[in-house]
Formats: sequence, C-alpha cells, structure tokens
Amino acid sequence: MSKEKENDLMQKIVSLCKRRGFIFPACEIYGGFANAYSYGPYGAELKNNIKKLWWKMFVQEPEEMIGIDGPILLHPKLWEASGHTEGFNDALVDCKECKMRFRADHLVEEATGKDLEGKLEEMTKILKEEKVKCPNCGKSNWTDARFVNMMFHTEMNSYEGTVYLRPETAGAIFVEFKNIIDAMHPKLPFGIGQIGKAFRNEIVARNFIFRIREFEQMEIEYFFNPQEKWEPIFMDWLERQEKFFYALGLKKEDIRLFEHPKEKLSHYSRKTVDIEYNFPFGWGELSGLAHRGDFDLTQHSKFSNTKLEYLDPVSGEKFVPHVIEPTFGLDRTILVALLAAYHEEKVEGEERVVMKFPLAIAPIKIAIFPLLKNKPQLVDKAKEIYNLLKQQYTCEFDDNGNIGKRYRRQDEIGTPFCITVDFDSLENNDVTIRDRDTMKQERIKIDELKEYFEGRFNK
Amino acid sequence: MSKEKENDLMQKIVSLCKRRGFIFPACEIYGGFANAYSYGPYGAELKNNIKKLWWKMFVQEPEEMIGIDGPILLHPKLWEASGHTEGFNDALVDCKECKMRFRADHLVEEATGKDLEGKLEEMTKILKEEKVKCPNCGKSNWTDARFVNMMFHTEMNSYEGTVYLRPETAGAIFVEFKNIIDAMHPKLPFGIGQIGKAFRNEIVARNFIFRIREFEQMEIEYFFNPQEKWEPIFMDWLERQEKFFYALGLKKEDIRLFEHPKEKLSHYSRKTVDIEYNFPFGWGELSGLAHRGDFDLTQHSKFSNTKLEYLDPVSGEKFVPHVIEPTFGLDRTILVALLAAYHEEKVEGEERVVMKFPLAIAPIKIAIFPLLKNKPQLVDKAKEIYNLLKQQYTCEFDDNGNIGKRYRRQDEIGTPFCITVDFDSLENNDVTIRDRDTMKQERIKIDELKEYFEGRFNK
Repeated sequence: MSKEKENDLMQKIVSLCKRRGFIFPACEIYGGFANAYSYGPYGAELKNNIKKLWWKMFVQEPEEMIGIDGPILLHPKLWEASGHTEGFNDALVDCKECKMRFRADHLVEEATGKDLEGKLEEMTKILKEEKVKCPNCGKSNWTDARFVNMMFHTEMNSYEGTVYLRPETAGAIFVEFKNIIDAMHPKLPFGIGQIGKAFRNEIVARNFIFRIREFEQMEIEYFFNPQEKWEPIFMDWLERQEKFFYALGLKKEDIRLFEHPKEKLSHYSRKTVDIEYNFPFGWGELSGLAHRGDFDLTQHSKFSNTKLEYLDPVSGEKFVPHVIEPTFGLDRTILVALLAAYHEEKVEGEERVVMKFPLAIAPIKIAIFPLLKNKPQLVDKAKEIYNLLKQQYTCEFDDNGNIGKRYRRQDEIGTPFCITVDFDSLENNDVTIRDRDTMKQERIKIDELKEYFEGRFNK
Repeated sequence: MSKEKENDLMQKIVSLCKRRGFIFPACEIYGGFANAYSYGPYGAELKNNIKKLWWKMFVQEPEEMIGIDGPILLHPKLWEASGHTEGFNDALVDCKECKMRFRADHLVEEATGKDLEGKLEEMTKILKEEKVKCPNCGKSNWTDARFVNMMFHTEMNSYEGTVYLRPETAGAIFVEFKNIIDAMHPKLPFGIGQIGKAFRNEIVARNFIFRIREFEQMEIEYFFNPQEKWEPIFMDWLERQEKFFYALGLKKEDIRLFEHPKEKLSHYSRKTVDIEYNFPFGWGELSGLAHRGDFDLTQHSKFSNTKLEYLDPVSGEKFVPHVIEPTFGLDRTILVALLAAYHEEKVEGEERVVMKFPLAIAPIKIAIFPLLKNKPQLVDKAKEIYNLLKQQYTCEFDDNGNIGKRYRRQDEIGTPFCITVDFDSLENNDVTIRDRDTMKQERIKIDELKEYFEGRFNK
C-alpha cells in the first residue's frame, strides 16, 4: 500500500470509530485532552469481549493459570526494586526557541539514522553540532538532553514521599507471589495473569490508541523450575500469543516476530521476542515475550527482606523460580482488531463498509428489526424476539429507517446477524436472518431461533 | 449480634479472604501500603462476575441503556465544572504533638455528637475549647481545621497545570454526552453506564475494602425529559438497584433505605436515597440514587461553551435533559456479597464454613476430583471431564488430599458443584455430583453432564 492509502485506512478507522460510537477523543467538548480516548458503547463492548476472551484463553481455561487484580497505586519501594525509579526514563530535550519538548533519541534517529538510546551526551552533541532542526519551529537551539522519569507522580495521605501510578501491571503480580503461594499452593510451572490500567507520562501520545499515556495491559508471569529447559516453555507461549491474535481475526501476513538482539537484552534475560503488527503507519509492537530469569523475585526479595521461594513438594527443595513474561497492550490489541475487521466491498454498485469481527468479539451479536416501525404487530413480535435473545446474546433493537440503511449501520458496527420481522412472520411464525459476511438471507422459524444461534455461536 | 460477634464476622471474612485467595493486603511483603488490597484468584473471579452481572442487568439487557469506558485522567476543567476542584474537600486537622492528621468533623462528632460538616471555624473552636483529645497520643493541641481537596493530583506531559485522578466515574459520562447523542441518536429516556476506577485521597481508609482510596465504581446517568414525571423513574431505579443486590444473595432485612433530608440536598436535587447495608460495623452506604436535575449538563455546557441539549425528533423541541444517577461502589458490593455468602454450619459434629454465593457470581462453578491422585485411570477420566466442562464453566481440577478435605476447600471458596470420579465411574461412565448447599450427592452419567449443568445454571 502507498503511504497515502495507509494513512487513509487509519483515518477511516478513526472516523468510523467516532461516527459509530466505538471510540471518541476524550473530553472533546473541552478541546480534547492529551490525546486520550473514551470507549463509546460499541468500543466498550468490543474491549470487554477482548478482555473476556483473553481471560478465558489465558487464565480460566489453562489448568496451571490463575488471575489476580491488584491496585494501580502500589508501594513505591516496589518500583525501586524493579528499577523503574532509577531507570524508567525518557531522554528529553527542549527547543529554547519555541519551548516545545521532544524525545532526544527520536530527533537524533530521524536526523541521522543512529540509535543512541540512553547516551545523553552523544545525543546532545549531535543535536547541537549537526544543527538538527526543531520539528515545530524549524530553528536549532537545544537544551542539553536529560533523563526524565516516565512514571506519573502523586501523593497519598498516610504515606510520606512520592507515590507512582504503576507504569506496568506486572509489579502487582510479583508482589503477591508469596500470598498466592500460601493461599493456592500451585505446582510449578504455573502462571499469574492480570488485566489493568497502567500509566506512562510519554512526551508524545500518537497513532490513535496505539500510544496513549493511560492504557490497559494484559500481563502474565509464568513461573517455572530453573532446572527445566526454558526454550520449549518460551516457544509454547509464543504460540499461545499468536493463537490469541488469530482468534481476534488477524491475518498471518500482518504479524511478524522481532527477536531482540542479544547485546540489547537485559543481563538477566535469555531471550525477548516482540510480536509486531503491520499497522498502516508501519510495523509496531503489539505484544512481548521475555525470559526474565529470577530477576524480579530476587530484587523484590532483597528490597522487602522476604524470601520469595518455591518449595518443591516432591523433592523438598527450595528455590527461586524463573519467569517468562508474556505481555499484551489491550488498547493496541483493540486497534488491530478494528484494522483487521475493516472491509470495503462493492455491492450492486454501492460501497459497503463492514467490520468482520470474529463472533466472540463482535460488540452486538444480533440485531432485531421490525420491517416497519408504525405497525404495532411487527414491533411487538420483534420485541418478543429481542427479549428472548437478549438474555443470552448482546442484542440491539432497531426500527429506524429502511431495512437497507439498518443493514449498513449493523455492518459498520460488525453485527454478525440481523433478524427482520415482516408480515409473513405474523402468518408463518418465521423471520429472515441475514448473515453479515455473506449477506445471504435465510428464513428460520421463531421457535428454532435459540437452537439456530447456539449452532452458529458454538461451532 | 453483639459488638464482639460482629467484629468477629469481619475478622473471619478478612481471614478467609486471605487464606483462600480472595483478597490480600496489597504489598504485604513491603509492610503493606495505605490499607490497599489486591484481589487474589478467587476474588478476581468474584469481582469479574459481579461486574458482568451488573453490566448485563444495567447496560446490555435494558433496551434504553448503553455503556462507555472513559479515562481516569480527564481534562481538569471538567472538575471545575462539576465543583470538585472547589468543593470536594475534607476538613482536616493536625495534632501538633504527634503530627497525626484527622478528619475534624469526625473528631467533633465523636466527642460531642454534633454534625458540623463544612463549618471550619466552629469545629476548630470545639476542638480547642472542649480540649478534644487526640485519638493517637491523648493530648489536645490542635491546629486550626482547614479544607484539603480529596482528589489525587498529578502532572502530565502536554498539559500545563495540575491533573487529577478522577474522584468519581460520572464525569467521564457527562463529558461524552454530546458524542453519544451524535453517534447513537438515543431516544429519551436513555441511560449511560460505566464501570471503572476512581480515587479519593481519604485521610483514613478502613473496614477492609469498605473504604479504600483506590476503588471501583459502577455508575449510571439516566437522562429524561424534564416534562416527564421524575418520581416513577426514580422509584423504578430504586427497585432495579435493590433487585441487583438481591441477585447477589443479600437478604431483605440487611438492606434499608436512607433518604437524605430535604435541607441537606444540593440545590439542584429533588431527592437522594442511599441504599444501606447492615455491615458488622454498622449500617453503611452501599449504593446511592440521586436526582440531579440538569445541573451537570448545564455546568459542562457553561464551562466548555458547548451546547449539551437533546433534540426531540417528534416535537422538534431542544432542551437539556434531567438526570437520575444510580451509583454503586464495586468493592463494598464485593464485601457484602462475601458477608451474605458466609455461613457456618454444624455437620456431623464438625463445623463447616461455606460461602453460599449465588450461581452467577461463584468464582468457580464446578470442581472436578479424581478419587485418588495415584490412579492414572481416575485422573485421566477426571481430566477429560474437566476439559469438557471448562469451555463453558470456570472449573477447577483438584487431586490434593482426601475428598472430605477437598469438599471443605471448595465450600470455603463457594463452588456450587463438585464432581468426583471414582472406580464405579470407570465401569458405569457416571460420576458423583455433590451440591454445595444441600451437600446431597447424586449419580449422573458423564454423557448427561452438559445437559445437567445447563439445567442447573439456567434455571
């Protein structure tokens, strides 16, 4: 695709999301706020469905997995142990002319192609010597590059000192390791999953919900005996992650793996692989998988003066388990589900936009229409069906406009099935069911609707 | 119940929650943090189930309801419009001797029985003149009482000035009113629901998860035509709220209504009713229902210079809808679900503790046991059943200890059904199903299990 076409697709998604109630720019009436977004009615359903699927696939179904739900505001010592207080920094630089602030490493990389992440002095030197221009005002008058911590700071009654909004959810998992061991007596290998908000004070939020300051993560810490071979566990998790993305409707060719080069790995990590997606704005990280050894448990053990060990019930051995960490960004997962679902089709000379979400994540499963809104018999019959089905499926009742228009709207929000109640329905007790993807219509008896949908949704 | 017995029940719940993996004191290895809590494996499931039930009852099933999911960090102007920046204060006072900080109104009320909320000078006078003692050090040397804003403050790149962690979720609803109207064209009356975190910098967090600084709310704004009679809408919502609590297993006698006296209502409110629960520590607020008139939309309209109106498609009239606001505290809802579920029973001379959760919210629906763990045939058969059922129900496989012990454990986590695979199972292809509440056991063919549970869970 050409650059223009690509940007076009993002624009179409952003516009459809707003127009159809998936995602709104947050606080728009106040002029927007910090490139944040609100999930509207269909976006909230989509998000919940993706969370539910993730939780089912990674927490509820695997026998060796459990879930937790910890706080956003955690003991600050946790972030000392994890290294975030010291090391979770962006290299920032200000334009002295227009006062805009930028990521120094991004400016240098754009200007020279060099990746100098972390090397403050070198970056400052290049910015000044090569007279790199400010992307905002075009001049070149830079402050020195400096590190700024990316955590949000706050203060809390009952605690002296700075408190942080968690920059990742994983911390809350490690810190409950001991309680989980004591309460659940899990056998190795076992994993702990969590879904929740995290916050990073990025200098620039961008690409819609790809990079936002307040975002949601789905993270797992998978503990295993360091005597075990880690490679098969690692490969198994990579497969599980990919399987999740395929379940969301992503195509194989839009996914690739990026293995971090050995020399860039943290000292404790044996391997780190990102799953990347072919976004309209280029390949971008969607999910990560990292071997972290015993780094986290050892650090928390040291900083808390508490032993964080596993007692093998068979051998009687005590040891610190190693961990593999699969992480997912929820908001960008929603973005790829939207991108993958988006289709434009020509139907009888007209363009149809249809969101082909897999059944499990479609915000509305079934829409029910009376053919005409001013015929009480049709409306009553349609309401009856709506009331019957909504106990089990997320349904929508719509009597607004002609059927063609209603189909278009349901296509745009990705509803797999539309039911129309017409005059024949009153005589024959049957309805038309229209399939979103094939647009084929079939006639089904009302008595058989429940069974029909059980077949469709459980296959 | 006597005071001691009551405290006893809270202690039992707190202890069971930790021991069985429902709720842990957060960051315990770091000495705890700010009376915060983490939901452990069963607590996270319970919480998710309660959220799911609420979302189904209040957002998905009612035709006139939709949901949203907005950010925690919102445009600060929103909190000016809502009055939180100015008025969301606690009256605090410090003990000059021991430096402890207290709520002035609480100290005054405990010492004199007088409710002087909001009257700073009078509170200071009483504290000093009546030599009210510091609950910590026993001395009486107070600073003047002063207002301190209860919102958590932070700062964000890209925004100059203080940013707040939302002190309630409702703000994110009002601020998306226009986007929702434009995208969804809802007809009045309609409501918008939201579940999410909110933060209040309380001086004292207490009573387990009843009052915590980081908590979750489930809130609704229900908009209607001011020409309509509001009383029936109000009463209908009160009933819907109570129905939700009964669905969680709460008993009628443990719920009461508290109507705020007219003179205490905000100028815009016609009526406010709290639903209170008979907690072991006394009656406490569980949920609220407030008529708020057009206050919020009018304020946001004024502060944002944006018209927030509804255009009646029939009459062509434009007006600002009125709103009724049902709110629920999720964490305290979890607490009452735990309290209501807790039962102690004498069974054959032994005490049995059983959490009688309603089916919809039980963390684990079905536990599957092989009679003996060292008989591969039994284990394989049990695993087969586990793998069959876990696709539809949250299941647990347990082969640890004798069956009696396993029943006790499942009773304490509130699992409605336990399946045991024994030697007869191998011959007759059937299993024993034990009912949590009646402890009755019945023999069911494995082929009929799916149907059996469909009957049990959907009745």
